[in-house]
Amino acid sequence: MVKYAGGAFIPTIELDRKSPGSLSAQLVSGLRRLILSGHLAVGQRLPSSRTLAHDQGVSRITVVTAYEQLTSEGLIASRVGAGTYVSVALDIDRPLPAPKSFSGLSGAAAPRLARLSVDASEQYFPRLSHPEAPCAFVTGMSANDQFPMALWARLSAQYWRQPRNLVLGYPPAEGLYSLRRAITMHLQANRGISCSPEDVFIFNGAQHAFNRIGQTLLNPGDKVWIENPGAIGARNSLISSGADLVPVPVDDEGIDVAEGLRLSPDFRLAFVTPARQHPLGVTMSPGRRFELLGAADRCGAWVIEDDYDGEFHYSGHPAATLKSVDTSDRVIYVGTFSKVMFAALRLGYVVAPPALAQIFRRVAGATMQGSPASMQAIMASFIEQGHFTTHIRRMRRIYAERQKTLSDAAGRHLKGLLEVAPTTTGFQTVGRLAPDFNDLEVVARAAKHGIVLSPISRFAIAPVERGLILGFSAVPPAAIETAVEKLGRLLRTMVVEKQQALA
Amino acid sequence: MVKYAGGAFIPTIELDRKSPGSLSAQLVSGLRRLILSGHLAVGQRLPSSRTLAHDQGVSRITVVTAYEQLTSEGLIASRVGAGTYVSVALDIDRPLPAPKSFSGLSGAAAPRLARLSVDASEQYFPRLSHPEAPCAFVTGMSANDQFPMALWARLSAQYWRQPRNLVLGYPPAEGLYSLRRAITMHLQANRGISCSPEDVFIFNGAQHAFNRIGQTLLNPGDKVWIENPGAIGARNSLISSGADLVPVPVDDEGIDVAEGLRLSPDFRLAFVTPARQHPLGVTMSPGRRFELLGAADRCGAWVIEDDYDGEFHYSGHPAATLKSVDTSDRVIYVGTFSKVMFAALRLGYVVAPPALAQIFRRVAGATMQGSPASMQAIMASFIEQGHFTTHIRRMRRIYAERQKTLSDAAGRHLKGLLEVAPTTTGFQTVGRLAPDFNDLEVVARAAKHGIVLSPISRFAIAPVERGLILGFSAVPPAAIETAVEKLGRLLRTMVVEKQQALA
Repeated sequence: MVKYAGGAFIPTIELDRKSPGSLSAQLVSGLRRLILSGHLAVGQRLPSSRTLAHDQGVSRITVVTAYEQLTSEGLIASRVGAGTYVSVALDIDRPLPAPKSFSGLSGAAAPRLARLSVDASEQYFPRLSHPEAPCAFVTGMSANDQFPMALWARLSAQYWRQPRNLVLGYPPAEGLYSLRRAITMHLQANRGISCSPEDVFIFNGAQHAFNRIGQTLLNPGDKVWIENPGAIGARNSLISSGADLVPVPVDDEGIDVAEGLRLSPDFRLAFVTPARQHPLGVTMSPGRRFELLGAADRCGAWVIEDDYDGEFHYSGHPAATLKSVDTSDRVIYVGTFSKVMFAALRLGYVVAPPALAQIFRRVAGATMQGSPASMQAIMASFIEQGHFTTHIRRMRRIYAERQKTLSDAAGRHLKGLLEVAPTTTGFQTVGRLAPDFNDLEVVARAAKHGIVLSPISRFAIAPVERGLILGFSAVPPAAIETAVEKLGRLLRTMVVEKQQALA
Repeated sequence: MVKYAGGAFIPTIELDRKSPGSLSAQLVSGLRRLILSGHLAVGQRLPSSRTLAHDQGVSRITVVTAYEQLTSEGLIASRVGAGTYVSVALDIDRPLPAPKSFSGLSGAAAPRLARLSVDASEQYFPRLSHPEAPCAFVTGMSANDQFPMALWARLSAQYWRQPRNLVLGYPPAEGLYSLRRAITMHLQANRGISCSPEDVFIFNGAQHAFNRIGQTLLNPGDKVWIENPGAIGARNSLISSGADLVPVPVDDEGIDVAEGLRLSPDFRLAFVTPARQHPLGVTMSPGRRFELLGAADRCGAWVIEDDYDGEFHYSGHPAATLKSVDTSDRVIYVGTFSKVMFAALRLGYVVAPPALAQIFRRVAGATMQGSPASMQAIMASFIEQGHFTTHIRRMRRIYAERQKTLSDAAGRHLKGLLEVAPTTTGFQTVGRLAPDFNDLEVVARAAKHGIVLSPISRFAIAPVERGLILGFSAVPPAAIETAVEKLGRLLRTMVVEKQQALA
């Protein structure tokens, strides 16, 4: 190390005059790095503030300030008449920089992680990524083009005009009472569920709710019935709590309870989507509902009812909720505003059986601080002022129209290639490819043409029938029509290619 | 059961014409209850729609709609010429209503809950409740009266004027990139931490971060060093992951590392508040910092640094962060906007060591859907546009003034009764009562006079010195002065009472 009259040689520290950090903060940071890396040794003298200021092209006060900061941090010390030194206090058994090999779950870090978290991370299913812009066939995306932006912005502005003590403090851990009450009114009127606001808990979206439910109810190794194919995010949350997933097949009445009992009679929890099975779209039959509730009651198991898009039915009556016929307090109902309103809102809710509500309250009171108060309050106003009912009704018409567009366009452009099942609920439907197509090949070829398709197998945990899940919610009719036509052209090209290959 | 020509006798169902639920939805709900409770038996005939409409005073179409809904739910069925019956499909092995004794953790529910969650719920510490309106001496509450409401409302309004596809979709699980980048800039400039946005994770507040860190790192029974006295919420989160808490005493240099090593040399995690110990207010000395990092490195333990109010120092230099001198990637830094901005915002963040960041990303990608995009984006703008730096600087002046008011007023009104320690950082300080006072008695008496006081023991897990924690952040100087004067009068009254009791 070069020494010179002014103290240790300090390599020029790069200072960025456009950075939001002051020059002295940047100097502190550079010097700290030199000291901690051992580049400046314990006891070594630093240049005088005048010298360093000159070398770095900064004012002397900048250096003095930096030295003061490092002194207060205990990294350097000054003695009158002897200048500034790297502190001898540093000459203790301090850690050396970590070896850079330490990385990832398989490395040295693994033993210092929770076993449950390591186990879980090896089992996670890749979640569907949401495209930045809406496109035809994408699943689980609401019609952003139809969301009443101006109304929402107005309610938001009204919220922030309220007295500050109403809007700035901590919200209750279980959620704002006004939102919980509004949810009970909505559930009573639209989903046949009678509950009190005390049984409603607000979460940062349904996924957050699944995480907390899993933690509260499951022991590692507990058997959990999962619909196959089924929802991916919920499955990952339950895996995180150590669940041993039991894939139970879905037929045209919903989850096959008899098969579930055969596979795992000692199940502790069943995860179901009764109003509209995700992703196949089947509504659970009344008989199957009572079968499931009876099985849960006999086995002492819980049932999570994920009612992710139960608000949307396009003809006749809405499919009832399992919760509305749950007389033995087995069903934990989970709702979300991500689909009815918009995904970025991040608000979901749980209606717990009263006995479980006591426990959720206790856990929430000790370990949660609630979701952002503004989002909760604005959503509560949206419901209370009647906009929610209007919005749902309006969106029903819009989704019905988009569903019809998909169905009609498929009839015109996909005949004999891809049979699109009609549906009266939800955001998506099943497409069955003609026998000579391989679904994964179609998905890959379509992607090259900018067409996003999801194979049913993406949602599967055990083998399932081949096919596609086609969303119809995200874009206007004209865009759906165009995409169907384009898909038809691609499929016909693929048929010709196959014939040519055979010829 | 009374039978009459029109079918089974249906007791009048109460209908609320002002309820948001339609009359037919209310009728469905009432009939559903009667059927599920067994009040209407399987196979029993229901009154004709005309009869029920007459009895209930509603239109016939209301009853027809209700019957259609119940039919679609499988609860009733119609046969041409024979009317409407309670469905025989219900005559299966369906659960009976739950016995009402099932309640609470100690009851029959316990075996059906996660052991970890039952164990944890027995150990939780009561969290401080936040009063609805700010008051003197309350702890951990920022100066809502000084928050720039108009500026925040303006940024919020700007946010909602953006193109809908930018604001409505799912945010990334780890948080918006713009906020993570803004946080790195803030940490570099103000907290001496160099990190990349890839190492920053946004949570729904610091408490949410503690929950997820505990789940990712801890196995049940792992020893965790906790400052005694110390933060309550974080402690509960770590208990939830099965941590075996080891209370480590705090002296005037911070956590007593030597004592920690004596009590539990095999610790896996240490939870510390280095910039300003919560609640005692001590800044961890440089020597103690290196001792802690060295111990963590040797033992393969992690360190959570909770920097809850590190931004606020009122003279000289800010206390450095432990993260800024962590050369062995042991420190998980947790910051929050609840104190610097406002509590209802519900945004906190973690800076993870790079190796751990990989794992956090994996867990977040599989099981999280992110915090509300609007809150994140507005906060990012607040930082990027320089308002955050201005706000912190302004709040430092305000808190310095409030601290001085408390200190001066205590000198005038509390001499010989309660010695208030001066402080140059944070939101609160320690008050030491004269020897003849019992702290808990003072807190109870003060509460009767509307004065909120926190004994140090509220934050303790093992015995601690007696005393009070006095917040000075929540209300303007005049209110602090008044409260101190009132407290002085109360303490003097208590002295007189004691003397009279002795006489």
